[in-house]
Amino acid sequence: MGMKAFICLMWLLMWVSQSKGRLLFIPSKPDPNDAAASARWLVSLNFWGVLNTISADLGGAPFGNVVSYSDGLTGAGTGIPYFYLTSLDPTARNALENDKASLTVSEYPLGTCGTKDPMNPTCSKISLTGKLKLVDQQSKEAEFARKALFSKHPEMKDWPKNHNFQFFKLEIENIFLIDWFGGPKPLTVEQYLHPKMNNVGFLVLNLQSAL
Amino acid sequence: MGMKAFICLMWLLMWVSQSKGRLLFIPSKPDPNDAAASARWLVSLNFWGVLNTISADLGGAPFGNVVSYSDGLTGAGTGIPYFYLTSLDPTARNALENDKASLTVSEYPLGTCGTKDPMNPTCSKISLTGKLKLVDQQSKEAEFARKALFSKHPEMKDWPKNHNFQFFKLEIENIFLIDWFGGPKPLTVEQYLHPKMNNVGFLVLNLQSAL
Repeated sequence: MGMKAFICLMWLLMWVSQSKGRLLFIPSKPDPNDAAASARWLVSLNFWGVLNTISADLGGAPFGNVVSYSDGLTGAGTGIPYFYLTSLDPTARNALENDKASLTVSEYPLGTCGTKDPMNPTCSKISLTGKLKLVDQQSKEAEFARKALFSKHPEMKDWPKNHNFQFFKLEIENIFLIDWFGGPKPLTVEQYLHPKMNNVGFLVLNLQSAL
Repeated sequence: MGMKAFICLMWLLMWVSQSKGRLLFIPSKPDPNDAAASARWLVSLNFWGVLNTISADLGGAPFGNVVSYSDGLTGAGTGIPYFYLTSLDPTARNALENDKASLTVSEYPLGTCGTKDPMNPTCSKISLTGKLKLVDQQSKEAEFARKALFSKHPEMKDWPKNHNFQFFKLEIENIFLIDWFGGPKPLTVEQYLHPKMNNVGFLVLNLQSAL
């Protein structure tokens, strides 16, 4: 089968297996030695995690909150997580006071860890640490965030207007990735944002954007 | 059917539906108006979450990490989460320097949120904030933690001895619970630790400890 036919077949598979803008068909997990591909696979395939901020109300405690996120349209992830938050909720309020934050995502709910424990190092997990920033709501970036989020989280478009939800993003400064035995994988933000496309699983994930 | 027969039937159902010390049969979700029962249901049924600490290495950023936990044997949860951590991992190191912490758990991976988004307020989520403390490893409490954790996470007993895993617990000081529309539910630590047994779903969950 030629490359074009293979790409068409993959595209068709992704198209028929999408549900609510998310994939039902999970592209194969990258080689754990490829830290950038593993990290991008995990962040792009998942669509919720725990967003952590510093809570002044709770004496400076680290405060985790379950959030939905998106790093782009399905198959066209950028690696940068966007959020749709209201300052009725403490996370957005905390971030507007102190923008230190992290987003933590587990492979476990994707169903690809088999019978392994969620803390088993081969069941991957990532914590992106950086600054949680309000996006200019009139910008092109806000429009990108809207499409990225609403495609994977369709009910967001119906969330109450008077709650004043706004788009935020995490500006990543540090990456903590565990995807195998032997401790966290060295991975710079630059490597994460511009991964080499040398992994078939990750390539499949990005086919849609190339077509 | 008499109460004894009902209890026996429930006990039998739980016994046959256990897998690795976790329940395959999910006791029905408590009435969202019963904040204590909802919180205890969520913490006892789930077995992993994100544990947040303050990272001195990352300039005081809140650092979330995927962890396995247990609040007791299946059906006999106490509400207090225990962990099995190694200081090879930043979370335990952070806690030994600064014990401010929170544990965040989502209902979403239990599969009981249906088609709702993970951020939909009726898909419940909880953040327990407090202090992450090392348990005296020779104490009865450590023995309790061992049974609680190893029953729900059987592979823990085979984790490398030379990694020096130790039992920790979260001393809860504040509870943030969303289980319905209308913002976080008022819930004190006292109410959470000693819930009224007035909810059938929660009663079923606790039957095993009563037998």
